Parts: sequence; C-alpha cells; structure tokens
Amino acid sequence: MLLEENISSSPKNKWDTVRALEWCNGAVRVLDQRYLPTEIRYEVCASAHSIAQAIASMQVRGAPAIGIAAAYGVVLAVQQRYLENPATWKTAVQSDIAELALSRPTAVNLAWALSLMRQEIEQMAHKDDDPLPSLLKAALSLHETDITTNHTIGECGADILQGVRGVLTHCNTGSLATGGYGTALGVIRSIYGRQKCSVFATETRPWQQGSRLTAWELEQDAIPVTLIADSAAAYLMKLGKVQWIIVGADRIAANGDTANKIGTYALAVAARQHGVKCMIAAPTSTFDWNTESGQGICIEERDARELVNAYFLRTDSHVTAWNPVFDVTPAELIDVIVTEKGAIFHPNRNTLHALQK
Amino acid sequence: MLLEENISSSPKNKWDTVRALEWCNGAVRVLDQRYLPTEIRYEVCASAHSIAQAIASMQVRGAPAIGIAAAYGVVLAVQQRYLENPATWKTAVQSDIAELALSRPTAVNLAWALSLMRQEIEQMAHKDDDPLPSLLKAALSLHETDITTNHTIGECGADILQGVRGVLTHCNTGSLATGGYGTALGVIRSIYGRQKCSVFATETRPWQQGSRLTAWELEQDAIPVTLIADSAAAYLMKLGKVQWIIVGADRIAANGDTANKIGTYALAVAARQHGVKCMIAAPTSTFDWNTESGQGICIEERDARELVNAYFLRTDSHVTAWNPVFDVTPAELIDVIVTEKGAIFHPNRNTLHALQK
Repeated sequence: MLLEENISSSPKNKWDTVRALEWCNGAVRVLDQRYLPTEIRYEVCASAHSIAQAIASMQVRGAPAIGIAAAYGVVLAVQQRYLENPATWKTAVQSDIAELALSRPTAVNLAWALSLMRQEIEQMAHKDDDPLPSLLKAALSLHETDITTNHTIGECGADILQGVRGVLTHCNTGSLATGGYGTALGVIRSIYGRQKCSVFATETRPWQQGSRLTAWELEQDAIPVTLIADSAAAYLMKLGKVQWIIVGADRIAANGDTANKIGTYALAVAARQHGVKCMIAAPTSTFDWNTESGQGICIEERDARELVNAYFLRTDSHVTAWNPVFDVTPAELIDVIVTEKGAIFHPNRNTLHALQK
Repeated sequence: MLLEENISSSPKNKWDTVRALEWCNGAVRVLDQRYLPTEIRYEVCASAHSIAQAIASMQVRGAPAIGIAAAYGVVLAVQQRYLENPATWKTAVQSDIAELALSRPTAVNLAWALSLMRQEIEQMAHKDDDPLPSLLKAALSLHETDITTNHTIGECGADILQGVRGVLTHCNTGSLATGGYGTALGVIRSIYGRQKCSVFATETRPWQQGSRLTAWELEQDAIPVTLIADSAAAYLMKLGKVQWIIVGADRIAANGDTANKIGTYALAVAARQHGVKCMIAAPTSTFDWNTESGQGICIEERDARELVNAYFLRTDSHVTAWNPVFDVTPAELIDVIVTEKGAIFHPNRNTLHALQK
C-alpha cells in the first residue's frame, strides 16, 4: 500500500541532503528545528493534530515548509477519518483542516496549501473509494513542485552569479525553510555546485536563523560557510570579500519593494554603497500583486522580550526593545529578483508585469 | 589618614550615578561587569595583584576605566611595599607595576596611566616620607580629570544636539567604560539633562555591550532606553526615529578616520543614506597623530568561537566565523568629532590640526 512505503520526497544531490520534513511510512518525519544545531532530533507526526502542534511550536518553520507540512497533515486526517467511517470522512475532516489552519494563521502558504487540499477532497466523486492514494499524491506533488521551483530559481540565479568570488546571505532560506533546496540558499547551492566561492552568512539576530540553521544546513552539504555578526557585513563589503548579497523574501509588492527579515534593508543600503549587487530569490507565489508598494506592507513587530529577556531577567527592569521582524527594501536597491519564471533585472511595476501572467 | 577615608571619586548628578570603580577605605571597589545586568556584584581589590586580575578577567573594561584602575593599583602596591620596608619600596614596587602593565597589554590608557604614576614616584625627593598621600592624590586626580573631560565632551556634544528628538548609540561608552559619565554616553546624559529625547541602543554583537551594559547603565540613571538588534538600525533611521548616531572611538587617525566597535561603519553608511548625522565623542588622548589615515590602523580579529560556540558545541563542526572587533569609519562619513577641547565639524587633517597642540 502506498502509505506504507518509504517515500523520499525528492532525489537529493550532493549539495542538497537536508529535509525539514518527509513523508515516511504513513507519517511525517519532521526535523525539529528548535534544537538545531546542538541536537538533531526527529519527530514523527502521525496525526493532523501532531502536525498542527509541530507548526505552532516552531518544530517546522519557513512559510513553504509550513504549507507542505499542512498538506501532509490533511492526508493524515483523512487517513484517520476514513478508517473511522468511510461514509462520513469528508465532513469529519473539516475540523482537522480548521485546526491546521489555526496553527500559524499568518503564514500565507499554509492557507494556500490547505485550500489546494480542500479542492482535491471536494473533487472526489466516488465517496466510497479510498481517498488516500490521490490525496497523498497531491501532497507529495505540492512538496515536489516546491523543490522543483527552488531548483529552477537556483539555476537561474547561478547563471547570473557566474564568476562570483564571494556571496553573503541573511536569515535561513534553505532546505529547512522550504520543501527542500531553498530559495536564496538554493541559488548558493547551485553556484557552489558549479564553482567554488566564499559563502558568508549573518548570525541574523535575534533568532539566529543564520548561525543556528543556515550554518548547520550548509555544513551538512559540505559547503564551507563563514559566520559574521550582522553588524560586520558593511565592513566585509568594504574589504571586497563579497560581490553579491542573496536573500529571500516574505512578500514582494507589485513594484518590487521587498519585505524580508529585519536587516535586509541595511544590507541593501551597504551593498549599494560598495558596488555590491543585491539579489532576491523567491517563487512567484511570494508576490502580492494587490499591494502597490512597500508602503502598503505591514511590518510585524515581535515581543521586546526576544531582545531583552536574555539579559534582563529582573522583574523590576524597565528596559524596552523595538523588535520588528521584517523591513522593506525598496526596489531601487534591488538589482535582480530571481523566480521560477526567470530573472527580472531592475525590478519595477513594468518589468515585473511579465511574472503576473 | 587619607587612605582610610571614604572618598567618592566625583560628585554625581541625577543623570550619573554609576561608577565602574571607586577608591574606598584604602582599597578599590570594582563593579564586576561580567555579571551585569543580571547580577550587581562588587569586588574589593586591596592589592596591585587583585587589580591586575580584575583587568585581565574583564571585571573592569573600557580603556579609560582600565587606566584609572591601574593607577589605583600602583597606590595599593606602594601601600604594601612601603609598609614592608620604607627604605626599598621604590625598587620593590617596580614588579607590581610590571604586573599591572601586563594585565591588558594592548590598552593604550593602561600604559599611559602607569607611566604617569611612575613619573610621580620618580619625582619624590625625600624617600623616607610617606609616599601614599601624594600618590593617591595623583590617582584620584587622574580619575577626576577623566570625569571632567567627559563632562566637557558631554556639554559640547549637547550644544550641537539641541532640539534633537532621537539618538542612537552603539557599544558601551558610559560610566562603565570610563572614570565616569562616559564619552558618547556622556553626550547622551548631557542632552537628556536638558531636554527629553528618545535614546536607542544597539545590542552590539557579539559581546552585547549595548544590551548588557549600556541599557543597564542608563536604567540606573532613569534615562529611558530602547534596545534594537544591530541589524534594525537602518530601518530605524528610515522611519525617521533618530537624527544623530553618537558613538565613541578606540583610535582616531590624524585625518579623522575613526576605529571603533564593529558595526560603527555600517551605522555611518546608513546614517549618510538617511540624512542622519554622525558624531564621534572622544577625549583628545584617543587621537593617534602618528597614524595618517584609517588604512594604517590594524583591526584586531577575535576568536571565531565568540560567534560560533554558542551554537556549535559539537567538536566535529567545521563552521567558522570572521570576528573583527573594530571597523574604520572614514572621516567623510563623520559630521563632527567632539573632544574636551571642542568640536571639529567636517573632520580632516586640516580641521583637526588645532587639537594637536
């Protein structure tokens, strides 16, 4: 039976051995990112509820990875509900889907993936047929497509980077944040597969996605990486060590203004000052065509305690912090946006229009 | 007897209550900065050896503070050697001075302070007179002069900042790093004493001088401070929250190029991009007139483990880090250098010449 097989989500190559999650023996095997890099711990999620827990507790993070986890969650829900009663599973599964949707309500990919799986369920004509094979196929396909998209982005980005001697990335945009391979980190995988270059990664305060996740992930694939403090990036550029900064995106407005992890804007400003080029690597699903410019992007601010608490454990402390999660890099500081549909140099409303089709 | 009195190094005002070290009852009371801000722990150093230990172990840090600690260390050494043998103390004390000099060999202020105390000793004509009162007077004077210098810098800087709504500082340049009041943080104390304004402080990775020390120090003096991640500074500027960045200096070349804590250069680049002005606050002793420009300043790189170790405790990890302690901000990105001899706008070889006299 299909569900009992050991299905690898994708053939991995030399530069791509890490997976945030995989369908395996009728369950989802999740790499628990809260413990990385000090501990490599896997969690097996065998129910929609445990998938929802894994998302809510940040065992799985990164918008594309969350979407894929949720799709597998729907498969697990149907597996259970169909066993319970083959006649009523379609109704019964709705509460499981609702629980998955609430596990991380702000992640766009989560809603998108659940909507896709819901469509699959609704399209099933013969309600007594075993729904599992076709739903699992849909979830695996969603996972595969994300990886394929990332490979396309990676190769497209690598074409542009030909001859580069050093690159700098920020946050984690790799296999851990996606179905596999990664977006900005996928570009770095692709260029490193073609030619050796220096790869620098910022720590990415305050959550340390760079030092905890990116460094670990690249180490798994034997791609040498050098960590730097976020504040050392401008000096690194001044010394001529990098020719490109390559980052991902959380949302791209119709004019190319790009919201990404806090610190991206500072890197883009410094890059322009030093003649270093700035590449955004993201699938076209990251574009928000209804938002005209970066001014329309709401920037989430997280709890000040992420910055303060490590040092001010005294309850009488009044030290506060300002902790925006993202910032917006204006399109004029971006040299190229690389997508699965190709690269757009000098992004603006006109040049990006081709991607909207 | 003078040594038994409880001597406060300076009358403190409302905005200046913290001291890194004080002469007190014939010994030096050191605020142990390794435990801040989670624990306020004082160490009483009653010998030159214990002062040397406090410097070497970073209980006392900041070049001016280290210099003052060493001067008090000489007083403690003489106190002991004179008691042992009033006829031979001048010779005996030399090994104590040597130990103090080795406690942190790269700190310029340490050598300078010890040289000043050595001169005091050599000038003593009547070798049987009790040397303690005059040596203590010299050490206290050195301490007082540092504070007076900082007050002068603070008031001079505040004159320039008149009407400012928000300032951003980096690292720790306050009472904890100096004899008291601070340099860049002294300017912030002075302006805050005249008018309310928003004070932002970077975390300052990797040692967290901002979140550990600056935030704590300002909290003691009831000056509200908002911490930010180093990488959030450019976005803060873009939002118009600060009009000035105010930082200290570790070494200033003859042309005004300024070596300071890593990240200062990135802040100066972002400041220029946003019309935010950049102020360096430092005593004239920070100038290195023998170094023509920033190109002649050697940048110390610290152990990669400062960045890597918190997350890569596994011995088989090959993740490396680049960890420069300082960077150089070129003079053209600096709007003004404020010293105890006045403020130099548009610093360059010609405009700075007046300070050399």
